[in-house]
Amino acid sequence: MAAKKPKRVTARVPRGFVDRDASDLRAQDEMLAKIRRVYETYGFEPVETPVFEYTDALGKFLPDSDRPNEGVFSIEDDDEQWMSLRYDLTAPLARYVAENYETLPKPYRSYRAGYVFRNEKPGPGRFRQFMQFDADIVGAPNVSADAEMAMMMADTMEALGIPRGQYVIRVNNRKVLDGVLEAIDLGGEENAGRRLTVLRAIDKLDKFGPEGVRLLLGDGRKDESGDFTPGAGLSSLQIKNLLMVMGASSDRGLGDGKDPILRTALGSPVAHARGRVLNDMHIEETDGEEFFFDNLAMCDRLTDRALGNDLALSGTQELRDIASALEGAGYGTRRVRVDPSVVRGLEYYTGPVFEAELLFPVTNEKGEVVRFGSVGGGGRYDGLVSRFMSQPVPATGFSIGVSRLMTALKNLGRLETSERTGPVVVTVMDRDRMADYQAMATTLRNALNTDANGNPIEVPVPVEVFQGNPKQFGKQLQYADRRNAPCVIIQGGDEKAAGKVQVKDLALGKEMSAQITDNAEWREARAGQEMVDYDPANPQAMIAAVRDILSHQSGKA
Amino acid sequence: MAAKKPKRVTARVPRGFVDRDASDLRAQDEMLAKIRRVYETYGFEPVETPVFEYTDALGKFLPDSDRPNEGVFSIEDDDEQWMSLRYDLTAPLARYVAENYETLPKPYRSYRAGYVFRNEKPGPGRFRQFMQFDADIVGAPNVSADAEMAMMMADTMEALGIPRGQYVIRVNNRKVLDGVLEAIDLGGEENAGRRLTVLRAIDKLDKFGPEGVRLLLGDGRKDESGDFTPGAGLSSLQIKNLLMVMGASSDRGLGDGKDPILRTALGSPVAHARGRVLNDMHIEETDGEEFFFDNLAMCDRLTDRALGNDLALSGTQELRDIASALEGAGYGTRRVRVDPSVVRGLEYYTGPVFEAELLFPVTNEKGEVVRFGSVGGGGRYDGLVSRFMSQPVPATGFSIGVSRLMTALKNLGRLETSERTGPVVVTVMDRDRMADYQAMATTLRNALNTDANGNPIEVPVPVEVFQGNPKQFGKQLQYADRRNAPCVIIQGGDEKAAGKVQVKDLALGKEMSAQITDNAEWREARAGQEMVDYDPANPQAMIAAVRDILSHQSGKA
Repeated sequence: MAAKKPKRVTARVPRGFVDRDASDLRAQDEMLAKIRRVYETYGFEPVETPVFEYTDALGKFLPDSDRPNEGVFSIEDDDEQWMSLRYDLTAPLARYVAENYETLPKPYRSYRAGYVFRNEKPGPGRFRQFMQFDADIVGAPNVSADAEMAMMMADTMEALGIPRGQYVIRVNNRKVLDGVLEAIDLGGEENAGRRLTVLRAIDKLDKFGPEGVRLLLGDGRKDESGDFTPGAGLSSLQIKNLLMVMGASSDRGLGDGKDPILRTALGSPVAHARGRVLNDMHIEETDGEEFFFDNLAMCDRLTDRALGNDLALSGTQELRDIASALEGAGYGTRRVRVDPSVVRGLEYYTGPVFEAELLFPVTNEKGEVVRFGSVGGGGRYDGLVSRFMSQPVPATGFSIGVSRLMTALKNLGRLETSERTGPVVVTVMDRDRMADYQAMATTLRNALNTDANGNPIEVPVPVEVFQGNPKQFGKQLQYADRRNAPCVIIQGGDEKAAGKVQVKDLALGKEMSAQITDNAEWREARAGQEMVDYDPANPQAMIAAVRDILSHQSGKA
Repeated sequence: MAAKKPKRVTARVPRGFVDRDASDLRAQDEMLAKIRRVYETYGFEPVETPVFEYTDALGKFLPDSDRPNEGVFSIEDDDEQWMSLRYDLTAPLARYVAENYETLPKPYRSYRAGYVFRNEKPGPGRFRQFMQFDADIVGAPNVSADAEMAMMMADTMEALGIPRGQYVIRVNNRKVLDGVLEAIDLGGEENAGRRLTVLRAIDKLDKFGPEGVRLLLGDGRKDESGDFTPGAGLSSLQIKNLLMVMGASSDRGLGDGKDPILRTALGSPVAHARGRVLNDMHIEETDGEEFFFDNLAMCDRLTDRALGNDLALSGTQELRDIASALEGAGYGTRRVRVDPSVVRGLEYYTGPVFEAELLFPVTNEKGEVVRFGSVGGGGRYDGLVSRFMSQPVPATGFSIGVSRLMTALKNLGRLETSERTGPVVVTVMDRDRMADYQAMATTLRNALNTDANGNPIEVPVPVEVFQGNPKQFGKQLQYADRRNAPCVIIQGGDEKAAGKVQVKDLALGKEMSAQITDNAEWREARAGQEMVDYDPANPQAMIAAVRDILSHQSGKA
C-alpha cells in the first residue's frame, strides 16, 4: 500500500515452449490411453526415469550433434558432475536397464511416455520440450522382436482409428545401408562423416526426389531461394549403385519419388505408368488401386542388389526373417512394408529400423499437398545398454512423436476436440449469502455424481458456485455461457422468501443472456427458466430439475 | 570388432532423482485419477505449462531462499535470458493466467499435476524432482473460494479412502499472523527477516512443542546432539502474546503440543485432562472420543486474542466467513478446522492458508511414533498474478505432494500395490519357427482382448512370444513365472506333427518349474498341463483352454 511498487514483469512463456489447454490435454490423454492399451496387450509394462541423466550416461547420439551446446540442456552439479535433460527416452532406458540389470525380468518389455528436451533454435512447429511415447524390448537377440515391434505399431495406428491404407510401418535394416556404403568404398572410421552426409541425403528422398538426392550425393544442390547445400562428393558410379539399392534410380522411370505407390513399387518396369503392375514378380493385390511387391519378394530383390557385400546380405537375411514373421502373423504390406529407403537419423541403430508413416494428404505451409509423413520410428540398438555393461545386451524399440500424431489424428477427425459439458453454476444474487449458495452447490454435486446405489457415476458432473465478483449479474451468466454450463441456479431475496430457486436452462435461454446486464432487467426475462421448490432440508425438486436439463441436453447431443 | 573399445560408463541415476517402476506408476495413476475426478466435480479443468520459465517470471518465493543457487536449476539461454526449471506449479500458473488473461474465463478454475524441481542437497526422502498436484481459482476475490478449496480437499481425502477422523484440513489466515506480529512490534520492512525466523519457529510447534518454540522465539535452542539454533530474540512478553494467539501457551497446560486433541482444543481449561470438555463454549461433539470447538467458536476466541490489531481482526473476520460457508455446506471440524498455528512457509500468501494433515500414527526413522503429518497445503496469493498485470488479480490454490500422499495411502492399505496378472507367454521350442509362434500370439491376443461383439474388453490381457534367447527352456518358464504369467503355450516338433499345443497353467504347475532345466526333462513333467488341438486356421480349442485358465485364476483371486 505504501511507496513500494515492484517493477512489473512481462508474462511470456519461454521461446520454444508451449502451454497446453484442457481440450489439448484431454485429447492427449485419450490418445495415450489407446496406445498404452495396445502396448499392454503385448506384455509391456510402464517405467519412468527422471528428466535428468548424467551427461556421460546420456551419450551423444543426437541426429544433428553439430549444433551449439550439442543440442542438450546441461547443468554442472555441485559435485562437478554434469547433468543433462534427456533428449530422448532410449538413452535413459539403457541406463536404467544397466543399473537394474540383475533384478529385471529378461527380456524386459517396457513403455513410457514423457517429455524430452532439445536445446535448439525454436522455429515454427519446432519445440524445445515435446512428448515421446516409447516401447522397448531389452534382452531380445532375435529379429522376431523387431517384427513384433512393427506389428505392434501397426496395431497402434489402427487402435487410434487410422484406417488401413492411410498408414504404413516401413522396415529397413542399417546393415543393408552400411554394407552397401562399404561396397562403394565408404567403409571405415575415416569415412564416418561422409557416411552421415550420405545418409542425410538419402533421408531427403521424400522431400527432393531422386534428382535432388543425386545432387546431394554428388556436387551439391541449390534450392529455389539460391541457398547451396554442399554434396557428399560421390562419383557417378557410386551414386548409381546407391540409388539402385534404394530403388530410387531415376533411369528406371520412378518419377520424382514423391508418389507413395511409385516409391514403394521399387524398380517395377511399369510402375511409372501408375496402372496395373504387370511384371513377373510376386505381387500382392491389396485394394482396387495400389499394388506392392510382397515383403519376401522385396527381400529377394534387395538380395540381388546388395552388391555381394556380406554385411548387406546379412541385413537382407534379417529382413527376410522379419518378413516371414509378418507373413506368419498375417501382417501384409498394407500394414508393414520392407522399404530400403528408410534411414532413421540416430547413430545408435545397429540393425532393423522402422518408420511409421501416415499416407493421407495434407497441405503444408507452402500450400503444397504432401503426405502427412512420419509420426514415429525406431530400431535395434544392440550397443546402447552394453556401453554400461561387460556383456552384450541386444535391444529394440519404437518411439512415437506424441504431438505430431495428435495433429494427424485431429486432421483425420479421430480425436475428441469438442468442448465438454461445463459446470452447473450456482449464481450469487446476494453476496452475504455465500454460505447458502455453497450449500446448494454441495447438495447438487453430491446428488449428481452418484448413482442410485451411492457409487460414483462414470463421467463427473461439475457443479460450482460463481466465485468472481458477483456485482454484475450479466457477467455471471456470461461466465456460465463461456464455460458451456448446462444450467444455472438462481436464488435472490424473493425466491428465498418463497422457498424457491430458479433453474435456468442455458441451451434454451442462450440468445437472451447476452443483452441482459443487470439484475432488474434479468427479472423481466425468464426464458428457459423454471421455478422449483427448494429448502436446504428438502432439495429434491431442485435436483430433479437439473437432472431433467442434463438428460434433455445429452439426448440432443 | 576392431581395436576400438570405448571406455565403459557407469550406469547411475543422478543424485536426488529416482526411477519409478510399474507398480509405483500404476498406483500413482489410480490415485491421480481419483483426485482429478473430485476436482472435475468442482468445475476445474486441466492446464499444463512447460518445465522451464524465465527466471524473472518465476520470482523468488522458495521457503528457504538462503540456499546456494537459490534452490532452483537455472540455465542461460542463447539470447542471454535466464530460464529456470519450475520449483512449484503456482508461479507458472500465475504467469500463464497473466499471459492469457483476456481469453480465459474468469474466475479461472484449473488443475495440473506435474514435476517440480529443487536444486537442493539430496537426502533421505528428499528428492530434487517430485510431483505436485495443484488446483487454483484465479479471479476469486471472496474468501468463499478459500472455503471451497478447503472443502474440496476434504472431499479429495475421502475419495482416496482416508476415513473421516484420520485427516483434517486446517485453515488459518496470514493476516492474523501478520497482524499479531505487527502488534508485538515486528511490523515493517526492517523486520522482514526476523518475521521469517518467527514464522519458521511457529511452524516447528508440532516438532518441538511450545517449550521448544519458546526457545526458538527467544535466545535459541540446543538439540539433543548439542547443535544450537539461534533464536529470534523476542522479549518474554512478545513470546507470551504470540503463544497465546497460537493457543499453545504452556501456562494453560496444553502439554507438549504434540497431542492433536490438546493442540486443537486450544486454551480449553480442561483440555489437558484429555476427557470431557466441560467449559461454557460452543462445543461440537464429533465422535465418542474427541472434542473440538466448532469453527465459529474458534473464530470468537481468536478475535478476543487478536491484540486489537486491525489487520489481525480483518483476518479473523475472513476466517469467520470461511467458517460460515463450511457450516452452511455441512463441513464440520472433523473435516475442516480453523487452527491459528498453521503457518505455510511460502512468502507469497496474503490471506487464508490451508494444510491437509493426516492424523494416523506412523513410526519415523528414529523409531518414534508420530502423526503422519502434512500431505499438502496452499492459500491465497493475491499478489502473484498482478506482478505481471496493471490490475489486482486475487487467487487461491492448493497443492498436494503426490509422493507423500502415496506413501500415506500405502500405509493405510488404500492403494493397489499387488502384482497384476502377467502375460500369456508363447514359448519357443524351435527357433526356426518364430513365425508360427508369432501367429499363435497374434491369434490369442486378438481373441482374448475383444468381447463377443468384437469390442475391446476393459482390462487388457497381455500375450507375448518369448523374445529372449530360447536355448534353455527352463529359463523361458522362469521368465513366465517372474512376469506372473497365468499360463504358457508350448509347441515342439511332436506337438506340431500331431496338430496340438500344450497349454500349461502356471498356478498349478508352479512348484515343479524351478527344477526343470532342459527340454528333455520338461517332456517328462507335465503338471498342470493340457494338450489341445491347434492348427492356425482353427485355433478355437487353444483359445478356449486359455480362457478357462484365466477365468479359473481370476475366480480364485
